[in-house]
Amino acid sequence: MGNLRVVVYGLGPIGQLITRVALERGMEIAGVIDIDPGKVGRDVGEVLGLGKSIGVKVEGDADKVLSSSKPDIVLHSTGTWLDKVYPQLVKAIKVGADVVSTCETLSWPWYRYPDLAELIDSYAKTHDSTVLGAGVNPGFIFDALPAVLSATLIRLDKISIIRSLNAAERRLSFQRKIGLGMTPSQFKEALSRGEITAHVGFAESILLTAGIIGINLTEVRESQEAVIADKHYETQYFKIEPGQVRGVDGYGVGLINGREVIRVELRACVACENFEEVRLEGEPTITWRSSGTPGDPATAAVVVNLASRVTEAKPGLITLKDLINYSYST
Amino acid sequence: MGNLRVVVYGLGPIGQLITRVALERGMEIAGVIDIDPGKVGRDVGEVLGLGKSIGVKVEGDADKVLSSSKPDIVLHSTGTWLDKVYPQLVKAIKVGADVVSTCETLSWPWYRYPDLAELIDSYAKTHDSTVLGAGVNPGFIFDALPAVLSATLIRLDKISIIRSLNAAERRLSFQRKIGLGMTPSQFKEALSRGEITAHVGFAESILLTAGIIGINLTEVRESQEAVIADKHYETQYFKIEPGQVRGVDGYGVGLINGREVIRVELRACVACENFEEVRLEGEPTITWRSSGTPGDPATAAVVVNLASRVTEAKPGLITLKDLINYSYST
Repeated sequence: MGNLRVVVYGLGPIGQLITRVALERGMEIAGVIDIDPGKVGRDVGEVLGLGKSIGVKVEGDADKVLSSSKPDIVLHSTGTWLDKVYPQLVKAIKVGADVVSTCETLSWPWYRYPDLAELIDSYAKTHDSTVLGAGVNPGFIFDALPAVLSATLIRLDKISIIRSLNAAERRLSFQRKIGLGMTPSQFKEALSRGEITAHVGFAESILLTAGIIGINLTEVRESQEAVIADKHYETQYFKIEPGQVRGVDGYGVGLINGREVIRVELRACVACENFEEVRLEGEPTITWRSSGTPGDPATAAVVVNLASRVTEAKPGLITLKDLINYSYST
Repeated sequence: MGNLRVVVYGLGPIGQLITRVALERGMEIAGVIDIDPGKVGRDVGEVLGLGKSIGVKVEGDADKVLSSSKPDIVLHSTGTWLDKVYPQLVKAIKVGADVVSTCETLSWPWYRYPDLAELIDSYAKTHDSTVLGAGVNPGFIFDALPAVLSATLIRLDKISIIRSLNAAERRLSFQRKIGLGMTPSQFKEALSRGEITAHVGFAESILLTAGIIGINLTEVRESQEAVIADKHYETQYFKIEPGQVRGVDGYGVGLINGREVIRVELRACVACENFEEVRLEGEPTITWRSSGTPGDPATAAVVVNLASRVTEAKPGLITLKDLINYSYST
């Protein structure tokens, strides 16, 4: 995939990682888009701290970058909500580029934005573009991985996945979005007003897993609540007193007529253990547990690793269901 | 996949499991082929010990069963070596049926049988048939799974997989093929004369993994040796004295210019622990470990779960590389 021409759209922490990995894999960085005045006009190598320039400047005008650079693919990481980022996707589709985006709600967009999903699919087909939402989660832990693991079951009764991570090891913006240091009532209000998001994508992951396997769910639920500190904690950015928020515990469930068949749970808290565990119940029951998958590198890896796959996929709005034909099958 | 018409080719331990699972999933068993005089002519339900007949008799004449039953797919489990079983595959291809086979050497047939692989691919395309070799191993532990897990790595240096299983919990034919109770020299001779096989497929798994990821290996090696008992062991079928064979330890390695990039190891021995471990070294390094994947059920599950995927795949001789578009990408 060394010969792919890539535009990176969004040079935040994930976009920076994506750019570095794309460079290391020999991809050609044809352009980089970001609106941050502190980055626009600077060489990408300088923003990345590579100690050398790469001859590509960060630019704020997405239309100009995309139409002049004619990329094969756009690696997009600017936001979580599809109704906020779709104008950016439209710009990429319009020039016929394929897109891999970390936008969480794009991984199964028919859940929150069915009309937008239809529009994007139609527009992408018109312009021979393929659009995929993927990352570590949604995109791996809660969906792609358990779907593939389920292939070894004769009878699948239930899939349960827990992802637990130590929030103290994560970047500032992550620690902010899970409400570290807030009081329980501040957390509740900030979450309900959308000022913090904690994790977005429980429902998308569940519907993606069900889609790959062929499970027809009758209901999907999701929720999250604060984990409260019982003693003093500190991270690089926050001091947390007893009674304040030290993380978040969220979950999603997929049901068939009231029976839980898929459960995903994310615990992101200060001093929590780093691991993932996928439990497949049925005949036989099998559990897989990891030493922990670091979120940012894994998201950048999934995006870059899927780039060449997406350039070979059929046009339109696709999901990982279109790339993974190996799972339990109902 | 409830409406698939299936012929089961080979009603040994795996074929019996496959048949039961296919029935449980609502597939239509259109015919069952086996040459064992103790099975031919009996109702399949009786051979399976279902306590009821299913209205299908085991038949010895494969051509007759296949041409009269017109199956969508043949689930084939009769042998390990492609040069022994290809006449059976030819019969299935000839009637335009797709095939999923547990034949270990079919999972990457270009390694041991490049000419046969070309022939089968051409013949399958002529008859609009899709042919796939898959199972638990090759087909999951040493290949499909590590390939998918590698998608979360920014830089992949090496993949190592260990599969360890307690041979005492396995069926007689498995305990036989790993040489339980032999002396070390008997084991060595029986293995070299092909009287026992132990595990076949290390090289196939390595080449399949490399194929999915896009790694160009310059060398593949494989070997296995006896694990010798230091005390008395017993299984349901064997008594093993100190100095006799209590199992086998085999491995395969894939190299690029002398550097190991893929290593697979299988320990099948009496009183060994049941687990699998996949270690992905690079940036980041991540380890996944399982509670153990029972071989026979997992093989039957993979075969039945892939049946509907294979009926939708392109004609010809395919591998799991054609079904899995989610992995690290070089």
